[in-house]
Amino acid sequence: MKRPSEDVKIFSGSSNPMLATEICRLLGTEVGAAELSRFSSGEIYVGIGESVRGADVYVLQSFSHPVNEHFVELMVMIDALKRSSAGMINVIIPYYGYARQEKQDRSREPITAKMVADVLTTVGADRVITMDLHAPAIQGFFDIPVDHMTALDLIADHLRNKDLTDHIVVSPDAGRAKTAERLATYLDLPVALMNKRRPKHNEAEITHVIGDVRGKIPIIIEDMIDTGGTIVKVAEGLVEHGALPHVILCATHAVFSDPALQRLQHPAIREVIVTDTLPVEAPVMQKLRVLSVAPLIAEAIDRIHHNRSISKLFSESNR
Amino acid sequence: MKRPSEDVKIFSGSSNPMLATEICRLLGTEVGAAELSRFSSGEIYVGIGESVRGADVYVLQSFSHPVNEHFVELMVMIDALKRSSAGMINVIIPYYGYARQEKQDRSREPITAKMVADVLTTVGADRVITMDLHAPAIQGFFDIPVDHMTALDLIADHLRNKDLTDHIVVSPDAGRAKTAERLATYLDLPVALMNKRRPKHNEAEITHVIGDVRGKIPIIIEDMIDTGGTIVKVAEGLVEHGALPHVILCATHAVFSDPALQRLQHPAIREVIVTDTLPVEAPVMQKLRVLSVAPLIAEAIDRIHHNRSISKLFSESNR
Amino acid sequence: MKRPSEDVKIFSGSSNPMLATEICRLLGTEVGAAELSRFSSGEIYVGIGESVRGADVYVLQSFSHPVNEHFVELMVMIDALKRSSAGMINVIIPYYGYARQEKQDRSREPITAKMVADVLTTVGADRVITMDLHAPAIQGFFDIPVDHMTALDLIADHLRNKDLTDHIVVSPDAGRAKTAERLATYLDLPVALMNKRRPKHNEAEITHVIGDVRGKIPIIIEDMIDTGGTIVKVAEGLVEHGALPHVILCATHAVFSDPALQRLQHPAIREVIVTDTLPVEAPVMQKLRVLSVAPLIAEAIDRIHHNRSISKLFSESNR
Amino acid sequence: MKRPSEDVKIFSGSSNPMLATEICRLLGTEVGAAELSRFSSGEIYVGIGESVRGADVYVLQSFSHPVNEHFVELMVMIDALKRSSAGMINVIIPYYGYARQEKQDRSREPITAKMVADVLTTVGADRVITMDLHAPAIQGFFDIPVDHMTALDLIADHLRNKDLTDHIVVSPDAGRAKTAERLATYLDLPVALMNKRRPKHNEAEITHVIGDVRGKIPIIIEDMIDTGGTIVKVAEGLVEHGALPHVILCATHAVFSDPALQRLQHPAIREVIVTDTLPVEAPVMQKLRVLSVAPLIAEAIDRIHHNRSISKLFSESNR
Amino acid sequence: MKRPSEDVKIFSGSSNPMLATEICRLLGTEVGAAELSRFSSGEIYVGIGESVRGADVYVLQSFSHPVNEHFVELMVMIDALKRSSAGMINVIIPYYGYARQEKQDRSREPITAKMVADVLTTVGADRVITMDLHAPAIQGFFDIPVDHMTALDLIADHLRNKDLTDHIVVSPDAGRAKTAERLATYLDLPVALMNKRRPKHNEAEITHVIGDVRGKIPIIIEDMIDTGGTIVKVAEGLVEHGALPHVILCATHAVFSDPALQRLQHPAIREVIVTDTLPVEAPVMQKLRVLSVAPLIAEAIDRIHHNRSISKLFSESNR
Amino acid sequence: MKRPSEDVKIFSGSSNPMLATEICRLLGTEVGAAELSRFSSGEIYVGIGESVRGADVYVLQSFSHPVNEHFVELMVMIDALKRSSAGMINVIIPYYGYARQEKQDRSREPITAKMVADVLTTVGADRVITMDLHAPAIQGFFDIPVDHMTALDLIADHLRNKDLTDHIVVSPDAGRAKTAERLATYLDLPVALMNKRRPKHNEAEITHVIGDVRGKIPIIIEDMIDTGGTIVKVAEGLVEHGALPHVILCATHAVFSDPALQRLQHPAIREVIVTDTLPVEAPVMQKLRVLSVAPLIAEAIDRIHHNRSISKLFSESNR
Repeated sequence: MKRPSEDVKIFSGSSNPMLATEICRLLGTEVGAAELSRFSSGEIYVGIGESVRGADVYVLQSFSHPVNEHFVELMVMIDALKRSSAGMINVIIPYYGYARQEKQDRSREPITAKMVADVLTTVGADRVITMDLHAPAIQGFFDIPVDHMTALDLIADHLRNKDLTDHIVVSPDAGRAKTAERLATYLDLPVALMNKRRPKHNEAEITHVIGDVRGKIPIIIEDMIDTGGTIVKVAEGLVEHGALPHVILCATHAVFSDPALQRLQHPAIREVIVTDTLPVEAPVMQKLRVLSVAPLIAEAIDRIHHNRSISKLFSESNR
Repeated sequence: MKRPSEDVKIFSGSSNPMLATEICRLLGTEVGAAELSRFSSGEIYVGIGESVRGADVYVLQSFSHPVNEHFVELMVMIDALKRSSAGMINVIIPYYGYARQEKQDRSREPITAKMVADVLTTVGADRVITMDLHAPAIQGFFDIPVDHMTALDLIADHLRNKDLTDHIVVSPDAGRAKTAERLATYLDLPVALMNKRRPKHNEAEITHVIGDVRGKIPIIIEDMIDTGGTIVKVAEGLVEHGALPHVILCATHAVFSDPALQRLQHPAIREVIVTDTLPVEAPVMQKLRVLSVAPLIAEAIDRIHHNRSISKLFSESNR
Repeated sequence: MKRPSEDVKIFSGSSNPMLATEICRLLGTEVGAAELSRFSSGEIYVGIGESVRGADVYVLQSFSHPVNEHFVELMVMIDALKRSSAGMINVIIPYYGYARQEKQDRSREPITAKMVADVLTTVGADRVITMDLHAPAIQGFFDIPVDHMTALDLIADHLRNKDLTDHIVVSPDAGRAKTAERLATYLDLPVALMNKRRPKHNEAEITHVIGDVRGKIPIIIEDMIDTGGTIVKVAEGLVEHGALPHVILCATHAVFSDPALQRLQHPAIREVIVTDTLPVEAPVMQKLRVLSVAPLIAEAIDRIHHNRSISKLFSESNR
Repeated sequence: MKRPSEDVKIFSGSSNPMLATEICRLLGTEVGAAELSRFSSGEIYVGIGESVRGADVYVLQSFSHPVNEHFVELMVMIDALKRSSAGMINVIIPYYGYARQEKQDRSREPITAKMVADVLTTVGADRVITMDLHAPAIQGFFDIPVDHMTALDLIADHLRNKDLTDHIVVSPDAGRAKTAERLATYLDLPVALMNKRRPKHNEAEITHVIGDVRGKIPIIIEDMIDTGGTIVKVAEGLVEHGALPHVILCATHAVFSDPALQRLQHPAIREVIVTDTLPVEAPVMQKLRVLSVAPLIAEAIDRIHHNRSISKLFSESNR
Repeated sequence: MKRPSEDVKIFSGSSNPMLATEICRLLGTEVGAAELSRFSSGEIYVGIGESVRGADVYVLQSFSHPVNEHFVELMVMIDALKRSSAGMINVIIPYYGYARQEKQDRSREPITAKMVADVLTTVGADRVITMDLHAPAIQGFFDIPVDHMTALDLIADHLRNKDLTDHIVVSPDAGRAKTAERLATYLDLPVALMNKRRPKHNEAEITHVIGDVRGKIPIIIEDMIDTGGTIVKVAEGLVEHGALPHVILCATHAVFSDPALQRLQHPAIREVIVTDTLPVEAPVMQKLRVLSVAPLIAEAIDRIHHNRSISKLFSESNR
Repeated sequence: MKRPSEDVKIFSGSSNPMLATEICRLLGTEVGAAELSRFSSGEIYVGIGESVRGADVYVLQSFSHPVNEHFVELMVMIDALKRSSAGMINVIIPYYGYARQEKQDRSREPITAKMVADVLTTVGADRVITMDLHAPAIQGFFDIPVDHMTALDLIADHLRNKDLTDHIVVSPDAGRAKTAERLATYLDLPVALMNKRRPKHNEAEITHVIGDVRGKIPIIIEDMIDTGGTIVKVAEGLVEHGALPHVILCATHAVFSDPALQRLQHPAIREVIVTDTLPVEAPVMQKLRVLSVAPLIAEAIDRIHHNRSISKLFSESNR
């Protein structure tokens, strides 16, 4: 056991450099020097540009587009850091990809979210810091410590500045019902749940609303917005059932796969609130509001590095 | 790679010997000879009573009362089989315990469901066969293959023999919403969801019903019935909201911790449908109906042993 | 590699809280805050009540009654500490259970003592501190460091205060012969050995005494007293062979399974000397003397934490 | 150990489906049914379309463009097969990518070729079959068996049909010197070596020819052609040193990154001989000759499946 | 899972080729072809001379002189077999070396017997077959199956042909007391135990005899004879205490380090009975009798290969 | 995570004690106390003579004659240090043996260099520091960090003090071509390459020289000199092709197996430059020059211990 160095070293993959820069600014440090490039063959090259011997290293990488490039780049960065004798390799994954493949929905499928966990551990990760996992049990896919943070407080704090009269929290499907319940408790609002059904086997799927949304302004809470297809149908369904066409859409992760940006233009959606766990290019839409998770992650790094508890960083309902 | 023996050997822990016996009867074989005893110190002794060299071995153990005794007994049995040169050790866990501790609800908690998975793999399990996990992502806690079966078809088939006019499927909390949706699709019935809330921080928790249950007969679907406390409150809440006091309660796993049997006497509950993944002593209550999963497990063993697909054993919605 | 915290954190399972409290008192600290409880289903819940990030953590758990409960509780505690980012998890097991199943006496048996070692390592133990293992080779069952302490000095020091004229050290069976030899050297006394034999296959087992015990006061040395059955037969056998009926019985571990306390009332046994590696309820018998290992363990923790050698804590013959 | 199924199942990733189809045709079977798709987010989905329980499975994937997509796809396929209870997962990697990052050329670099090996083993590969590794020691990066085949015989057999008078085998750099030596022995031709040097630190790199190439037709042997940059400079250098401008260029792996196809049009290059370990679109250039490795791989599968030696498949010099 | 080949392949390291040859003769097969050589540097070369793909392979190596050469040779052989795609690698170690370093006698010692177990498992052993381990708990050092055979029956059967009137079984130290007890039961003879003591710290060690040996012929039972130093002192001590100078010395393993052969010439030793787990050159001494374990091992291989129980091969007392 | 001790502890195996002593002298410390001995049976005993709890430990062992003894001794030392609770075990292997078996040259061979890496990691090595590996990819055989140093600068610096007019760097075979190129660049000299060929299959092997050596003084660069057989033939071949008979022979590792010392007496060899990675007994030959790597290793230890970059210790071409 060597005398550990006292410096924090924060490195950034190429998925979300602005978030890494902002975190470093808040911590009064700079992003670690690393060359990330690609050969003509498409193979990734990583060269760590400064000594990390014995250092407490943090690597930030989100599973943004193109997701497999960023996943492999993260693997290669961890390998380079391990072989450079880094002391402790903490991997910050603001948005953990492949999280929707966390169980077998049908026979003979992979459980890719587990595979990602195994691979990161194999290549050398010592700890994972992540936010709002699609399924919380993914935490248990790791045998190394996982610090699972939430942006729910951030979103709730933003919403609390509004007049929330006649608002209702809506879970867009059964899988989000628990989160919706938590946000509703937090904002002291009622809850409704969308329910997709196929009445008979050859008939089309119908979306029911469980709960009364008439005359209400829906606050839809999701963990991520991918192509926006479901979310627009949910918004339309709510309006059909009497909700006001002023839907507020909240999600931690702005995956925004095509044609999400186009779909979110839908007139029934008044505001879209997301965070910067994934890079969102600046002036996309007027109704888009991007909250930064940088202060949350910066404080987590600071507390982890100084061995102080980070439980205060979790939302009240989570603590 | 030796020439494998062709016999199946099925061993039973002390948690559910009747289920093991029934499975063997269906497969035309007998439960493998094993001495399971306890020393005065409480330490478990296991002696495998017949050669298992190279054999395709199945060990059945449920996490029934007393749960830790049965867990450790299973560990010791697997170790004994491994050291006896068994070819492939398949562990059948009809009811997988500790499944509710599958993520950290608060900081500094264990993820015991993952720990159980790691321990079973370490001691020598090669495959796990289980039913209706409390959280499906537990499947991903294993790196060995997991065959995850369901008793939902069994329950649905039993319900379909009834006149289901004016019935409604009810999810007792947000966590079961998906299963309720699946059963409702299967039976072509509407769905309702119970929602627990605390309006202000110092006020008492209130249970809301999302969806219209007036004049309906609720079919509550759960994965397990533990002490029955929640389920009785749900039944009462439904009746308060206008449901008929003829509640049908369905669950795969009859944990029945005290005082479950007493609570289930509640007059608003008309029928309780469970399976024998856990041992239920015979004439407990007239309104209790125990369906046997033995045919399902027996067929799974037969198919696994002969390398045939078991996907047909899953419910339609799951296939 | 983070800057490690300098505090020692000592947690106690529910097997021997008094020993943990005494150790903490000697070290001038308090037992770490942890919630240990059981759900109605019998499942164990553990919640660590204070931050352990980066801390040098010690968990004390003995394999006392009920042994499997305490074993699983230890596993769950270690998992909780690991997921709470503890720096180094040192497991103190004053009495290591399942130690008598350390080899296969017959075919197709488990080697449970090894299984316990593998399981503890898998769930996250970084070091084990234990005392007077039934078989010293159990140390080798671990790949993590094991500090194997002995209470033999403690017992010998206690005996040396007596007039030992005409005393003789007796090994109750072949397995303890080495320990008896060591104690005899230490006290400068002769040695005798009990020998169990079955003269012909259908005749009853006979206990022989190897060595001359006539007119002597036997000091029987054992690692543990379980039900006391063997020990009483040994005492009687010694008296039959001419020893004085003032037997002194010494053992590190007071397992005391039923009906040990009753058997130890035997008039030929004058004194019973044990330690508190297992909890012994206070005024059990007048002839029972319980020596505390707390000072030994407290010093071990102090030395381990400060990276000083603990070889001085071993008995002279062992050093 | 179950009774193994006797069928071979061959699956193909999306990197080189034509090679997989040809191999299956030669073996009289069909490519296994598998759905390989991408979600809008770019995440890979794999669904195995037929039962593989206990089967001897082969998965073929080359590291062709886009290399990281194909690498992750392979990982996901292996995970899906493992969770589908495949008996033995044999991974065929005709072209093993990242092979040039097989050691640290500078400090703080990854050893990505090893990382790839560790990752494939972690996700579930049981054996690797590959061809003409850039560095043979990569074989040793695996702890699972690696069958390392060569296309050198295939290339040599093709060359032997020509009139080889006044031909000379040329190694384009020091790293290929051994392979060139082997091919020259095989064809009974002399050898020359290219040597890159920087005379003084600020001067430009100069390519020397070691050996006499005057009036000779060079046969350049490489393991792969990537962008073709080096190879064209080597050809030009040879001509400058008196070689005839009828260069024959041989390589196992046609990586052909931009602008390789354009560069290979160089008039001094008369013929380009490669194999189909990577997909080469049909009528690229008249002077391109693509030899198929399908018969080699098909025979390897057949021999491996029937437990017969495959050493006959290696070139004479390799055997 | 491939169709396993049905042939047994038995390979021999260079430690005990005669034993391997005899085992193969009994099984009607031949020792597998393998080149075992040494480079001038002393490095070991192994080349397996025939295909072992999928075969059930047995490698025989004893820890005979020079012990480290044979240990490393075994490691290299296992690696070569693993990389040759052997199906199952069974390692036969008639004499397991380093067995006396199976626990820490003092602080800061290795546990080499465990290290040997870990190393053999790491390089690829799937099962170990061994005889009369110095400490039976070494079996538990492995997580792979260990078949632990004994030569005690072989020795007892040989002794039973003699007139055993006035014989006594003697354990030469406390560590062998259990084995002596077992042999005495088997032959229906009394037992004595030698006891080494140092009366005061600066005085010389004295050997006591516990039990009455006057006029008796001692049968000393050991697991191994190393330099013979202890054994000769024991023999002399027995004669001093009145035993007849016709000592019979029995041991499974004839390590015979210098100057054992010279010491065994001692006139008080009438007969030396050992086995061929280690090679004993033919006409060493007239009073030496070498029993062959080849039939025992041959039958074990036959039973293991055909998945039949081998428990019948253990001595009655062991079964 | 305990508070690490700040002392460096350097231990030496018995392969190269003089190098260890010199390194310690440069670092102002002493070689750690350890008993290294052999029992009569040839088994190795190691006893660590001072506390290493939590210490940053370095163990130096070269694969010198007798290579397997030193390999096993290293394994036992690491095990002893691990079980003594050493904090970090850094293994210094100046000469890494078995490096020439780093790939399969023929089927069914071991990859012993990988096996050595796996074994060292299994027994407890945390880091490896080594010099001029025969194949640089061996670095990738480890998953723990490897600091790969070079003596090329040391040798080059020594050569630069000479008048190098009309000198030429010669690679003795294709495998060393890259190193020769690097040295030539460093000294600003031309390069030649020796090439072994068998013109027809039944004719004798002929050594060609590629490049013009007429009238030049050859500087042959090798990684090691083993028996010297190849090197003498190369020297003779160079002279036959017109080189001056004043050959300078450079190599990092002086393996010097018989009859190397005799062969190096060859009159065409003027000077032999090696290092002390292996022990060279003092006044072997007048033309032998032994450069010490002690300053390089001492600085590496100092930098590693203080978490400073060691990239400055690599040669320029390597950095």
